[in-house]
Amino acid sequence: MKIEMLSTGDEVLQGDIADTNAAWCGQALSDMGLSFSRRQTVADNLDDIVDAMAQAAKRSDWVLVNGGLGPTSDDLSAEAAARLLGTELELNQDWLAKLQAWYQAQDTPMPSSNLKQAMLPKGATLVDNPIGTACGFIIEYAGAQLIFTPGVPSEFKQMLQQQWFPLLAKQQPQAQGEVKRFYTFGLSESSLSDRLDGFALPEGARLGYRSARPSIEVKVFYPRPEAQFTALIDSLREHLAEHVFSEDQSDWALHLQQLMIAQNKKLVLAESCTGGMLASELVAVAGSSAYVERGFVTYSNQAKQQSIGVPESLLAEYGAVSIQTSQAMAEGALRHSEADIALSITGIAGPGGGSEEKPVGTVCFSLADGKQCFSQQLQMFNRSRSVVRIMSTAVAMDMLRRYLTGLPVMGDYQHLKRVVSKM
Amino acid sequence: MKIEMLSTGDEVLQGDIADTNAAWCGQALSDMGLSFSRRQTVADNLDDIVDAMAQAAKRSDWVLVNGGLGPTSDDLSAEAAARLLGTELELNQDWLAKLQAWYQAQDTPMPSSNLKQAMLPKGATLVDNPIGTACGFIIEYAGAQLIFTPGVPSEFKQMLQQQWFPLLAKQQPQAQGEVKRFYTFGLSESSLSDRLDGFALPEGARLGYRSARPSIEVKVFYPRPEAQFTALIDSLREHLAEHVFSEDQSDWALHLQQLMIAQNKKLVLAESCTGGMLASELVAVAGSSAYVERGFVTYSNQAKQQSIGVPESLLAEYGAVSIQTSQAMAEGALRHSEADIALSITGIAGPGGGSEEKPVGTVCFSLADGKQCFSQQLQMFNRSRSVVRIMSTAVAMDMLRRYLTGLPVMGDYQHLKRVVSKM
Repeated sequence: MKIEMLSTGDEVLQGDIADTNAAWCGQALSDMGLSFSRRQTVADNLDDIVDAMAQAAKRSDWVLVNGGLGPTSDDLSAEAAARLLGTELELNQDWLAKLQAWYQAQDTPMPSSNLKQAMLPKGATLVDNPIGTACGFIIEYAGAQLIFTPGVPSEFKQMLQQQWFPLLAKQQPQAQGEVKRFYTFGLSESSLSDRLDGFALPEGARLGYRSARPSIEVKVFYPRPEAQFTALIDSLREHLAEHVFSEDQSDWALHLQQLMIAQNKKLVLAESCTGGMLASELVAVAGSSAYVERGFVTYSNQAKQQSIGVPESLLAEYGAVSIQTSQAMAEGALRHSEADIALSITGIAGPGGGSEEKPVGTVCFSLADGKQCFSQQLQMFNRSRSVVRIMSTAVAMDMLRRYLTGLPVMGDYQHLKRVVSKM
Repeated sequence: MKIEMLSTGDEVLQGDIADTNAAWCGQALSDMGLSFSRRQTVADNLDDIVDAMAQAAKRSDWVLVNGGLGPTSDDLSAEAAARLLGTELELNQDWLAKLQAWYQAQDTPMPSSNLKQAMLPKGATLVDNPIGTACGFIIEYAGAQLIFTPGVPSEFKQMLQQQWFPLLAKQQPQAQGEVKRFYTFGLSESSLSDRLDGFALPEGARLGYRSARPSIEVKVFYPRPEAQFTALIDSLREHLAEHVFSEDQSDWALHLQQLMIAQNKKLVLAESCTGGMLASELVAVAGSSAYVERGFVTYSNQAKQQSIGVPESLLAEYGAVSIQTSQAMAEGALRHSEADIALSITGIAGPGGGSEEKPVGTVCFSLADGKQCFSQQLQMFNRSRSVVRIMSTAVAMDMLRRYLTGLPVMGDYQHLKRVVSKM
């Protein structure tokens, strides 16, 4: 089934508001095994809207028109629909009655501008809007059905869920598709593609990649849930191996929280260049107080010495960005807390502060558990301050994930060169 | 000048990612007095992409094509461009040399799939990408120019700013307008609009609002820089008064950094519900080590006691989310650091942990300077965990901004009810 979406509105085109309706609907369709074949936004101009509607109708089975049903003069969708059909707008008595009742219940006279919202193209089928003054409607053109919906997100969502999705489900051939997602870390999109190139896919299945820093998502679509599909997933899991951070769970912090709580462990953090980013990422998940014990943002050398006991002599000898300092930070954080595991990060995020020996992008990491301490120094190339900090946070999270799942704590990361490692 | 945007990618259509590039570019064009006449997203299907390109080219002067330049098989933009022109892809030696040098610098062999990124339609003009492996290019079709750009937002933005916008500016007939921006905090968009309604604007000038949480941006466009314009800005500044966080500077953290460095002050943070978000926000700015001394993420009660000396009795009597605890956190953080000013935040971010007396969204803040301590308890209504944390971070930053500029430290925030305040 071919479905297109057509939104109207200068605010969206000018970037003043983001088109969240489209993203929401795209996800909802994808859960039904459907998807938009095209999405467009057209300025508030009658000719352009009519033209876009006509072309979309010729290409598809359904056109979802969003916006332009308000009471003001720049709301043009109903007029455009009438023009498309070569007909006129006429007063819909049912909707007029509903509007009048709505205002009566609020003891308010109906503004005359609302009359416009009861004017529908001749022959259109009314679609109820239980929570707003803009009704929806459906027309047919060039073999396609066009459904007109209000721009207000709550009204849009309710109308689709209650009225359009059930229509689609009825028209859809029975079997729904399945999607399996692997969230990977450490391999680039191109080497993932190299690695899975020539991977034997059962007929009808297809692979997709999506870069969602720091993850790269590998997803496989398959038309029907069959035994082949289970075998395919097992085989992909084997190919991607330890590079899979999580499956079907894009939130790394939530995944780590589940692992930490299952193992009844508490965590302390000592951050320098990331400056609280790791702590904040973990605390973003509800329930994180069950395992995040505390964090130290030891940004200055004095903070490293005073708050978590990094020896001054060690800082003087090896520098704040060194594997020795990261180890002392992790072990010191463990001593200065009630936690079982400590993660530390210290690095040069740039743009200043680099040297020939330790250029911008040099970052040291340690994970200490009171018995062992795993440390590594990585080098990130050509990275902005923001990317160095985001990637550093991701590496620390990956070290913890690897530790908790019994994998080697230090992984091989493409584009992140390991300079030193120490266990 | 008619400009359309054409994005490719199933991820956008399926709502897996929001199209932030389009919104960003819409705003940037609007600042140049230009706008998109249409924006569309097409699935990763060669025929559909070629068809959309052809139609967009026929309607406009410029088509901005975004995405589909990656190394994988679902990246189809260059192939579609060649098909549109009825020509072939050929290896661009300049870009190949650049790719090879890039990988050589990283001491990594170039994956063969990257070769694809150097294959451009015959006759295309290369557009440099200084920070990524996907080059851009320009072709001509049906009297329009089509520019192909990478989907990665940082690469997209840099390419447009450095290469496309200057081209547009050259082609644009009239002189460019001026834009003045005020980044406000504390007033809602509707009350800003009420406040500035009936504001006498010189001919040709117009006001715009944009919600960019936590700021609301008030911008005024004016066709030419004239004396009238200066008077208009002065008058707007007076109207908006202390609600202006910064002018022409959307980065609050950078603004605070400049104020702190100018006053030669050092800062320490004690965060509970924000969990390092404030520290991370400040440290995101290069050069922040000049004033961010350290931070404590005192998430557990033990951390509050042990790391910054909040008395156990005080936690027992008033609770972790209280004006007394926030004050003890700020004063304790000051004692346990070398800083001049301390900011503390403790609150209930939810969704759990609320009570009748202190519902979700209750947040306490203190600012201490060793002489005085300013504290307040605010109530945020109907807010998600994420919004409570973002708004809390913003309120703390606003308290610091007010302190540093000699304003009352506690502002009036619409939609944030002040429950208690103490000086």
